[in-house]
Amino acid sequence: TDVAHASNKIPIKVVIFDCRLDNEDATDKVIDIQGLDYSAFLKTVTKEFSTSSEETFVLSTTDRKEVNEDRFKELKDGNTLHLLQSIDQALSVSTKEHILFLPHYDTLVKSGMYEYYASEGQKSLPYAFAELIDNALSATSNNVGVRTIDIRLMFDETQGRPAVVVLDNGSGMTSKQLNNWAVYRLSKFTRESSEFESDHTGYVRPAPVPRSLNSDISYFGVGGKQAVFYIGHTTRMITKPAGLMDVHELLLSKDEFEKKEKNKEDIYKGFILNRKPGDSSHITNEDERFLHSLISEEVRHDHFTAVVVTGVQPEHIAFLRADFHLWTRELAHVYHYYVHGIHGNDMRSSKRNVDHMTNIDIQISLLEKLKIPRTVNLREIDKDMQTLYINSSVDAFEFKAQVGEDGYVEGIIRYHPFLYDRETYPEDPYAIPTLSGEDEEDCVIINQEGRGKKPIFECFWNGRLIPYTTVAEFDWCACHKKSGPVPAECFRRISGVLFTNDKFQVSTNKLTFMDLELQLKSKETIFTRVVNGQEQRVKIHKEFIQWLKDCHGKWDKQIMFSGFNGIMTRTDV
Amino acid sequence: TDVAHASNKIPIKVVIFDCRLDNEDATDKVIDIQGLDYSAFLKTVTKEFSTSSEETFVLSTTDRKEVNEDRFKELKDGNTLHLLQSIDQALSVSTKEHILFLPHYDTLVKSGMYEYYASEGQKSLPYAFAELIDNALSATSNNVGVRTIDIRLMFDETQGRPAVVVLDNGSGMTSKQLNNWAVYRLSKFTRESSEFESDHTGYVRPAPVPRSLNSDISYFGVGGKQAVFYIGHTTRMITKPAGLMDVHELLLSKDEFEKKEKNKEDIYKGFILNRKPGDSSHITNEDERFLHSLISEEVRHDHFTAVVVTGVQPEHIAFLRADFHLWTRELAHVYHYYVHGIHGNDMRSSKRNVDHMTNIDIQISLLEKLKIPRTVNLREIDKDMQTLYINSSVDAFEFKAQVGEDGYVEGIIRYHPFLYDRETYPEDPYAIPTLSGEDEEDCVIINQEGRGKKPIFECFWNGRLIPYTTVAEFDWCACHKKSGPVPAECFRRISGVLFTNDKFQVSTNKLTFMDLELQLKSKETIFTRVVNGQEQRVKIHKEFIQWLKDCHGKWDKQIMFSGFNGIMTRTDV
Ligand SMILES: Nc1ncnc2c1ncn2[C@@H]1O[C@H](COP(=O)(O)OP(=O)(O)OP(=O)(O)O)[C@@H](O)[C@H]1O
Ligand SMILES: Nc1ncnc2c1ncn2[C@@H]1O[C@H](COP(=O)(O)OP(=O)(O)OP(=O)(O)O)[C@@H](O)[C@H]1O
Ligand SMILES: [Mg+2]
Ligand SMILES: [Mg+2]
Repeated sequence: TDVAHASNKIPIKVVIFDCRLDNEDATDKVIDIQGLDYSAFLKTVTKEFSTSSEETFVLSTTDRKEVNEDRFKELKDGNTLHLLQSIDQALSVSTKEHILFLPHYDTLVKSGMYEYYASEGQKSLPYAFAELIDNALSATSNNVGVRTIDIRLMFDETQGRPAVVVLDNGSGMTSKQLNNWAVYRLSKFTRESSEFESDHTGYVRPAPVPRSLNSDISYFGVGGKQAVFYIGHTTRMITKPAGLMDVHELLLSKDEFEKKEKNKEDIYKGFILNRKPGDSSHITNEDERFLHSLISEEVRHDHFTAVVVTGVQPEHIAFLRADFHLWTRELAHVYHYYVHGIHGNDMRSSKRNVDHMTNIDIQISLLEKLKIPRTVNLREIDKDMQTLYINSSVDAFEFKAQVGEDGYVEGIIRYHPFLYDRETYPEDPYAIPTLSGEDEEDCVIINQEGRGKKPIFECFWNGRLIPYTTVAEFDWCACHKKSGPVPAECFRRISGVLFTNDKFQVSTNKLTFMDLELQLKSKETIFTRVVNGQEQRVKIHKEFIQWLKDCHGKWDKQIMFSGFNGIMTRTDV
Repeated sequence: TDVAHASNKIPIKVVIFDCRLDNEDATDKVIDIQGLDYSAFLKTVTKEFSTSSEETFVLSTTDRKEVNEDRFKELKDGNTLHLLQSIDQALSVSTKEHILFLPHYDTLVKSGMYEYYASEGQKSLPYAFAELIDNALSATSNNVGVRTIDIRLMFDETQGRPAVVVLDNGSGMTSKQLNNWAVYRLSKFTRESSEFESDHTGYVRPAPVPRSLNSDISYFGVGGKQAVFYIGHTTRMITKPAGLMDVHELLLSKDEFEKKEKNKEDIYKGFILNRKPGDSSHITNEDERFLHSLISEEVRHDHFTAVVVTGVQPEHIAFLRADFHLWTRELAHVYHYYVHGIHGNDMRSSKRNVDHMTNIDIQISLLEKLKIPRTVNLREIDKDMQTLYINSSVDAFEFKAQVGEDGYVEGIIRYHPFLYDRETYPEDPYAIPTLSGEDEEDCVIINQEGRGKKPIFECFWNGRLIPYTTVAEFDWCACHKKSGPVPAECFRRISGVLFTNDKFQVSTNKLTFMDLELQLKSKETIFTRVVNGQEQRVKIHKEFIQWLKDCHGKWDKQIMFSGFNGIMTRTDV
């Protein structure tokens, strides 16, 4: 006889519902078919449902396929069957079929696809790095000394396959926290009330700080995963929490997921390796041999996290190499106020390097074969747009906005004067000329109109730039017909920054705000001018126009050719 | 004695690794602590690891917390412990701690958040409906007769709480397919090679059809879930596959997920109800009483799917009510060519309603208390932009583009002539005036310049509009200095449409293309003019300029005020 389900000893339980017509209750029985052949199975069913010997019945799957001898062999644990009088009989009772609907592993592996690519034609890779820097900023926020975030592009083939490593000297993670890192969409908010109780004891929002530079930029429980799988296809998280002895390591990889699916193993099961700091004996793959030296550094640090991404996409490698100055500058823009402090990179300030020094070191190195490593600290970059705005401005107008109960925004408007023969409103030196060919395509106009029609404000959320959202203007700082005595061109000499707290929603990839402009333009929003840190009880529109007028009078130096007297030839030279 | 783990009989297995210093292999043992108290547990450990009686040892969690009597009681099935000589001893061997990292249920519930909101200020709700229409188009693609897609807004409070119902007479789903519907990120591509073998037997790409109207618009395995959880918080999928007897029903709800999490039940376990068509005895909730009549309709249809969304967000209800004409028009735009056929809604055509009739009925009804139901068939809408473009144009230039091996694009450029005193290039009658206040804010300029600086092309993917991507122009149809004899304003009298097949990537919410413009502008792209369905071997730039010149000569009717002869007063009236 053919014993179908005998290959292993794990029970194979199928659920059978009695749906024969005379039946009024959905009685269901669980039968373990492990070790049974077809006729033994039928006998068991006959017995369990006490079908009489003259009665005919049929067993079917829930899509009405009769369970004959062949189909019987294909039954799996958890399958639901219907016991019927005939195969086309209507269901006398309704039945409950238990199902599992685990998200496919592409949930993790492709999570970043849309969000990063959606911005057609824009180089969004720096913003994937930003997600990893966000996490490192959060993790180092309670550091006593320097907060070090070290991005290393290991592109030296003699040391293994290309890898991107992001290292920080932050709090590190316990093995439970490392486990939670891998849980998609588990955020600090959902963590508290969940089964993951031994991890965090509930999220406490940080107290308000100037410019909302609170380092609290872990939000949705997706950023790190989106980022690493956008950068490459395998990630090794290596971490050690402060004060504890052991290093915890977790490997997530697309290949592993595929293998597990093929072998019908549980997709979301894995393991954390707990080990001694400095022990790299588990690294046996030649492709990762650079890890031995990285791991040997562990013994020098009490707490740290290293994100090691391998299987880096070739086009990313090309871009990271070729456009090093571009993407590092973009990161300097995103973290400008974290790196330079609340006043930003004011290179003319006498207080420079004293008051305004922050303890955040974000460092990027590109390591290539036979080349001197290229290294930059974001603090050294002085071509990012915020640095240009700050250093070309001569005066600032500060304000606050409150939206609802606890939506806070700080704002600065800066004045870039006209000097002698030109506007000083800075142009982006690396701006890509717009492709959309106008008729004037042969005639490049540089900075003729100050800001021109560009939006005034760049927007920062919890202190970091949200790169794809700008705010054009507010009613009180826009150029109206009735703007009075101030020339229209002065309105094109201002740039601005907004700093919001996290009561304003951003998209999960932190590329855009949801509805910042809409909220700020609501009638309920209260704007207040701030002078030397003091809020002023004054009409902001009037104040602003007065300030702008003053700026114009004080700073704009226009050469006026007031009359033409004919051409003179200097004979004295 | 205190028997800690006796409350149930399910085994509680903990894994203990022997990490004592003299140890060189990571021996691990699994111990079932079910029913054991602390001292019995210690005894078992002593025995299993044959620790000698004079030896001291300590058991710790992997975050180095000693397992004392209290902690012992908190141990859970699957926990990993270390057997150490002392609590601060370094790990002699590395240990493998098994973990589970199931995605949080917000993966489903909040999947749509970013994608829909990201488009700040835009009303993106119609595009959530579009995801459900996409699914219905796919499902009805093999229908023999009429393909009916019925969207019903059940806003009559006397019938229950507000609900959105999308009904189609498509293929329906077997219970296995319904199960797969709920699996996030399981797409038709990943389905084939996966454990879900009994479902599809592998995806076959449809053969090319004109305008890529292939109804094959299910792609990522996320659309339906994103859409329903963006619209409301609970969804009941009700479906019946053709030829089979039973209806299958699956309920997914945010509340259920929360409850399961609270009770520490498996998040992704649920059940499908299998039942007789027309049987609504399981609907006991007053909020859903409208379902009784919906379910009673079932007996009239052999195959169908109904998506019933409840817990509809109040702001959605307000918008759907107030802006009915707006969002139905937007849907008419998205599905213009599905509804009207490959030539679109040409209201002047003599062949109208004969040749070009499609069998796709997309119908929307708004049902409110004490009001006559408002119903519209998308085919009746004639204010959508494609209808306006088609009917204001006098001539068309057709072309094809091929990108790589199998990227196909069809294109049409239409000419909207100048007639007597005005441009006929259509304005969007419902366009929201741009907020960004220019200086000219008091002066609204309507259609003075034809298309102006707007992009030429709207873009359709597999026949349906991708609403947030446009393509400005191509080199060969752009206005250059050397465009020769054609006046520049003629270039502003053209509108265009691109139809791509699915070889061009779109974002998971189908709001944007990834890099359509970039790909089309690559040097490898070959453009070919098409005349009467025949590809022409000619230089497209020359052809286009000639066509444009012809259009100008033939269609533009300009009134010229050629000379001023003084004012005349008519005395004869
Ligand atoms: N470098 C790190 N150091 C310590 N903990 C980290 C680090 N990176 C990630 N984590 C932990 O892992 C969690 C998940 O990170 P991930 O970036 O995926 O999501 P998130 O930061 O919570 O939310 P977001 O989607 O906003 O990034 C974090 O909340 C944090 O607890
Ligand atoms: N109305 C329907 N009739 C029949 N089958 C359906 C219907 N709606 C969904 N399905 C099935 O459920 C699956 C999942 O639908 P869902 O919209 O979530 O993802 P998808 O359509 O596969 O991909 P996309 O992300 O592009 O929408 C579909 O592939 C299809 O097999
Ligand atoms: Mg993060
Ligand atoms: Mg879909």
